[in-house]
Amino acid sequence: MLLEKYFEGRRKIINKALDKYLPSADIYPQKIHKAMRYSIFAGGKRLRSILLIATYEMLVNRHTSRALQKLLPLAAAIEMLHTASLIHDDLPFIDNADERRGKPSCHKKFGNAIAILTGDALITKAFETILKLNNHKKALQCLEILLDAASTRGMIGGQVVDLTSAQKRVKLHVLRDIHLKKTGALLRAAEQMACVMANATKQVTNALSDFALNIGLAYQVIDDILDEVGADELLGKESGEDQRNERVTYPVLLGIEESKKQALKLIHDAHNIIKYMPNNQVLTEFLETIRDRVP
Amino acid sequence: MLLEKYFEGRRKIINKALDKYLPSADIYPQKIHKAMRYSIFAGGKRLRSILLIATYEMLVNRHTSRALQKLLPLAAAIEMLHTASLIHDDLPFIDNADERRGKPSCHKKFGNAIAILTGDALITKAFETILKLNNHKKALQCLEILLDAASTRGMIGGQVVDLTSAQKRVKLHVLRDIHLKKTGALLRAAEQMACVMANATKQVTNALSDFALNIGLAYQVIDDILDEVGADELLGKESGEDQRNERVTYPVLLGIEESKKQALKLIHDAHNIIKYMPNNQVLTEFLETIRDRVP
Repeated sequence: MLLEKYFEGRRKIINKALDKYLPSADIYPQKIHKAMRYSIFAGGKRLRSILLIATYEMLVNRHTSRALQKLLPLAAAIEMLHTASLIHDDLPFIDNADERRGKPSCHKKFGNAIAILTGDALITKAFETILKLNNHKKALQCLEILLDAASTRGMIGGQVVDLTSAQKRVKLHVLRDIHLKKTGALLRAAEQMACVMANATKQVTNALSDFALNIGLAYQVIDDILDEVGADELLGKESGEDQRNERVTYPVLLGIEESKKQALKLIHDAHNIIKYMPNNQVLTEFLETIRDRVP
Repeated sequence: MLLEKYFEGRRKIINKALDKYLPSADIYPQKIHKAMRYSIFAGGKRLRSILLIATYEMLVNRHTSRALQKLLPLAAAIEMLHTASLIHDDLPFIDNADERRGKPSCHKKFGNAIAILTGDALITKAFETILKLNNHKKALQCLEILLDAASTRGMIGGQVVDLTSAQKRVKLHVLRDIHLKKTGALLRAAEQMACVMANATKQVTNALSDFALNIGLAYQVIDDILDEVGADELLGKESGEDQRNERVTYPVLLGIEESKKQALKLIHDAHNIIKYMPNNQVLTEFLETIRDRVP
């Protein structure tokens, strides 16, 4: 499949950039640098940074590896921030997850104390990496975008609402808000940063921000469905976790069929946003792979 | 005492700025904003941000409240980052401190999960607050300084070395390194940001960076001495904590008398750096108050 090859190529470039921007594992104090690298290279799909790159390529219609060089601090920063949030979320008193992508999670491998500091270090390193952009004005704009995505208006806020909603019978609008903040905010940041780098208009930026929020929400709804119907392979992990954690999900609130409809509508809306944009092949195919996950 | 009045006045200005830059406690999700404010307003001395302001005032020889307005994002940011580090350090598997400044620490008040996220939120908010500076070039310079202080080369790195040295018979140079990173790095950032705002020369910036590191180290050595000799009042908390935690300290490695000599030498060296600078009254008096803590 063409898209898989595209993803594979971009993933390689992003991983090389992460390797370049992260402190080497033999720099003192080694333990924290080892832990940062362990979690970053534990096998992430790099969805967020690939979306950033694919959107930029669509907007400027250039696809050479050289044209992408200037995006790499942003791509690396977004993956560092994402990984930091996973490390802290996996901790015993938050989601208490012993594994992440089939490997021991950071605190299982390095202990709780180092895991907390590794999250802190990756948050800090993410913002530091943005400063590697040559263009100062764009660096400030992208910093503002990424800080907003991380903040209590974004990822941190989503995690707080998720925590305070646990084992409560939350309403649909709260569940939607959790997903938009926990998953949507960083995807939106990827789109917004791509727009900054491509000098996109405000109108295009707003449209692609909505595109990202739709994708984020669709992903979560589909994950909820897959967890409920027990489709472990498509889910990429053991299903039934939501029930065990007494988490309210889309299927719990709406039923399976209505949840599927909602997921398809979100993907449809996302497609409507990009369908008249030139060079939209990769993003269109990307939407198709999300639709293919709906069972 | 004149200096106490100066400190009191500056503290008021800084607290007002913190109140302004932090999200209001009634903004959703309220819990995290309440926790951020709880820890920020738990009674910090604001030493780091006062040092920033006092140094700026010395360099530009202006002391009006209006002249200080443009420093306030930096002063607030430095206190947010400092508080974030205290919240994470107090957690059960790091320093396991139930109290901070005579009040329940953040995790005791709000639970471990919220405390971790509150630290994350304050780290993020600190960098966001720097972006409030009007001057973009200076904002980027100050961001770089604060990110460096927070990083594994600074505060996070110091905490890692401290953790991995616990209950080990570390050598003096390791203990010195822990203090320089955990305490010195943020004080140095305060001096460096003051220098950026005052357009100080590189030579002055380097000298004041050393001044800050000397102060940071002196503070820690004196704290170690006070903890050892049981001077609870001067220490501001119950003494004997280091022994209970089996922490290696300056007195353990050098004895009380040699530790005192070292502390006085550090203050003397700091004084040598500022003694020929004009308008150095506040910083000179400040050094005297540190010297007065040596028992």
